[in-house]
Amino acid sequence: MSYLLHLYCPECGRVFDAERVQTYCHDCASPLLARYDLPRLRAEVSRAAVSARPRGMWRWHAVLPVRDDEHHLTLGEGDTPLLPVPRLAAALGLERVFVKDESFNPTGSFKARGMAAAVARAQELGVTALVVPTAGNAGGALAAYAARAGLPAHVFMPADAPAANVQEARLYGAEVQLVIGLISDAGRLAARAAAEHGWFDVSTFKEPYRVEGKKIMGYELAEAFGWTLPEVIVYPAGGGTGLVGMWQAFAELEALGWLERNARPRLVAVQAAGCAPIVRAWEAGAERAQFYEGAQTLAAGLRVPGPFADRLILRALRDSGGRAVAVSDAEIMAAQQDLARLEGIFAAPEGAATVAALRQLAAQGWLRPGERVVAFNTGTGLKYLDLLPGGAQATQ
Amino acid sequence: MSYLLHLYCPECGRVFDAERVQTYCHDCASPLLARYDLPRLRAEVSRAAVSARPRGMWRWHAVLPVRDDEHHLTLGEGDTPLLPVPRLAAALGLERVFVKDESFNPTGSFKARGMAAAVARAQELGVTALVVPTAGNAGGALAAYAARAGLPAHVFMPADAPAANVQEARLYGAEVQLVIGLISDAGRLAARAAAEHGWFDVSTFKEPYRVEGKKIMGYELAEAFGWTLPEVIVYPAGGGTGLVGMWQAFAELEALGWLERNARPRLVAVQAAGCAPIVRAWEAGAERAQFYEGAQTLAAGLRVPGPFADRLILRALRDSGGRAVAVSDAEIMAAQQDLARLEGIFAAPEGAATVAALRQLAAQGWLRPGERVVAFNTGTGLKYLDLLPGGAQATQ
Repeated sequence: MSYLLHLYCPECGRVFDAERVQTYCHDCASPLLARYDLPRLRAEVSRAAVSARPRGMWRWHAVLPVRDDEHHLTLGEGDTPLLPVPRLAAALGLERVFVKDESFNPTGSFKARGMAAAVARAQELGVTALVVPTAGNAGGALAAYAARAGLPAHVFMPADAPAANVQEARLYGAEVQLVIGLISDAGRLAARAAAEHGWFDVSTFKEPYRVEGKKIMGYELAEAFGWTLPEVIVYPAGGGTGLVGMWQAFAELEALGWLERNARPRLVAVQAAGCAPIVRAWEAGAERAQFYEGAQTLAAGLRVPGPFADRLILRALRDSGGRAVAVSDAEIMAAQQDLARLEGIFAAPEGAATVAALRQLAAQGWLRPGERVVAFNTGTGLKYLDLLPGGAQATQ
Repeated sequence: MSYLLHLYCPECGRVFDAERVQTYCHDCASPLLARYDLPRLRAEVSRAAVSARPRGMWRWHAVLPVRDDEHHLTLGEGDTPLLPVPRLAAALGLERVFVKDESFNPTGSFKARGMAAAVARAQELGVTALVVPTAGNAGGALAAYAARAGLPAHVFMPADAPAANVQEARLYGAEVQLVIGLISDAGRLAARAAAEHGWFDVSTFKEPYRVEGKKIMGYELAEAFGWTLPEVIVYPAGGGTGLVGMWQAFAELEALGWLERNARPRLVAVQAAGCAPIVRAWEAGAERAQFYEGAQTLAAGLRVPGPFADRLILRALRDSGGRAVAVSDAEIMAAQQDLARLEGIFAAPEGAATVAALRQLAAQGWLRPGERVVAFNTGTGLKYLDLLPGGAQATQ
C-alpha cells in the first residue's frame, strides 16, 4: 500500500488533495511535491522487508503514489545495476567510482521510472488520455507505458530530436507531432492541445508523480551501499527530476531511520556548455535560472533551456554542498568513448557528460580519491547511433 | 565457488579437462557440455541461498564455470524481467502468456550472458585475445566484455548485419571486419585468423562456456515460477545456445532437487521462413540439419544456415515434446508491432518471431488456454531501427 498523505507546494506550503488529478501550484509557478506518512511507515515496514521483495521499482510502493497494486504498471523498471568502474577511476586518479546504469530501464532510459509512476497514478485517478512535450526519451517512455495501460498517448517533440525517439514512440502507437524548435516550444503546443482535447499533460514537474518514480534511484543507492549514501552523485540535469527526486528520497530515508548514518552526498548537476541555465544560475549565486537563449548541444536530453524546477534544483545543489558543471560536446563524445573502451559501457551523451564532469572535478581536486562517487548513465547510447562513425568498407 | 567437474562430449562421452582451454570434440564435430558436482552442490547450497544474493547472473556461480570470484565479469547481465502480457494473450485466445525480456541485458541482448561467462572463464584460463564470427549481437557483446576485461577483441560480421552492431563493437574498441556473406563465411575467416594469430575463437558452441551463461535463463524461470517450470517455452533459434542451455539447466535443477515437481516445458524453436534448417530437419524427423542454402531474413540473428549444435537442438525439441516453427518476415514485423502496441515492449525481430509463432500455435490449438507459455524476447528493437518507418514531416 501507499503511505501518500497529500501534495504540497514547496514555495508557499499550500496543501493539495492527492486523491484528485493535480498539476502544479499556479500561484508560485512551482512543482508540487508529495508527502508520505513516514512515522507510520517507519513503525509498520522495515527496510529489510522491502529488500526481500521481487526486483523492480514497485517494491518501494509504500513511498510511491499508487494506492492499488492492480494499478502498478510494470515493464521491468528499476533495480538497475551499480557498476564499479575501476579502470576509469584509475585513469582519473580516483579510487571508488561507480556508474549507476539507467540504460537498463524499459525504453533504455531513466525516464521509464517517472512514466511508470505518473501513468499508473493518472490511470488510477481516471485520466483517459496523455500528452507530453519531450526532448526525446520521455516521449518513448510515455508511449510505452501508455500502451501498457491501454491509454492513448500524444507526443510533441523537437524535429531535431533523435530519430530513434520518434520511431519508438510511433511503434508503441503514440501520435507524434514534430515541432520546429526546442522542448520549450513543444511544451507550449502540448499545453494548448491538452486544454483543447482534455488530455492530461505529464510535462516534467507539471504533474507531481514523475519525480516520485525517479526518486527511487536514491533508495536503490542507499540499499546498494549498505544503507549509507555515497559521498558524491554526478547527474546530468535537463529538467532536473533525477536530482530533485533523489534529494527528496534522502530526506525520506532519514525520516524513516533507514540510514546507518545521516550523511548526504554532494550533488553535482552536469549540463552541456551549449545549454547551461543551471550552471549560469549556480555560478551567479541566483535562486532562479534564466531562460538559456540559443540552446545547442548534441546531448538531446540536455537541450532544456528553461527547467521549470530551477529553484528546487539549485536549492538541492546548495544544501548538499554540491555544484553545477558545464561540459562541451567534444568532451562528452570523448568521455563516451572512454567509458566504452575502458569499461564496456555504452552511455547516452547525457550519461557520458557525467564522466566528462568527473574528469574536470578530479583534475580540480574537488573529488578526493577515497570518496565513493556515483556517476549516472541516464540512458542507452543505442538511440544516438547517428552521432557515431557509420558503416565501413567490406573486405574479402 | 564453482562446482564444475569437467567437460564432456554428448556424442561419444569422452571427458575433457576443464582446467585447460578447450574448444569442441573434433572426433564428433560436437560441442562440449559442462558437468558439475551436483550431489555435492545439493548437499551444500540451497536454492533459497541463491535467491537471497544480490541480483544478476553470477549469483548462480555454483553452476557457472569461473573458479575465482575475482574473475567474474559483470556489466549487469541476468535477472531480466518476466512480464505477464495479458492483452496479447487475450488477442491470441490464451490466458497465461509471459515475455522473458532479454533486452534488459548489457548491449541489449541475451548474448551478454554467454559472453560474460565465456570471456571471464577464458581470461581465468590465460587467454589474451578473443575473436568471434557473429550475425550481429554476439559481436557487440564480445566487444563489451572484452573491454571490461581489458582484452583485445576481433569481430567478423556479415556486411549486411545491422549497422548498430558494427558501431557498438567499434566503440567498445573491437576490431571489426565486415565480410561479404553469411555468418558461416565469417566463421571460416574467424577460425583462420584465430589459428594465425593465436586468438581464442568464441564461436557459438565451439567453446564450451557461452551456453553455460545462457542456461541461467532456465534457472531464473524456475525461480520466478516458484520453482516449477512453465508448460511451454517459445524461443528463437539461430545457433541454439538458449534452447540447449535451458534444457541443460532443467536437468541440473532436477538433479539438485530444486524443483517442486519435475515437469519440463515443451520447447518450441522458432526460425525465419527464409532460414529454417532446424524446422526442415524437425519436419523430416532427421537427427541432423542440412546447411540451408540461400538463407535470407531481416531477423539478422536468425540468419544461421548451419547451426553447429543441430543434434543437441533437435534432441531437446523431441525429448521435450516440443516442435520447430517457421514464421515469415511479414509475420515477424506484424508481431513486433502487436507487442509494442498491446504491451509496450519493443522487441528485436528475433524476439518478435516468437510472438508470430504463438499466433500460429494458438490458432492450431497446440497451445491451450490454461498453460503457462513463455516467449523470449532475445534483444532490443533499438538495434533494428532501419527496419521501421523513418523520419516524418515537421509541423508548426
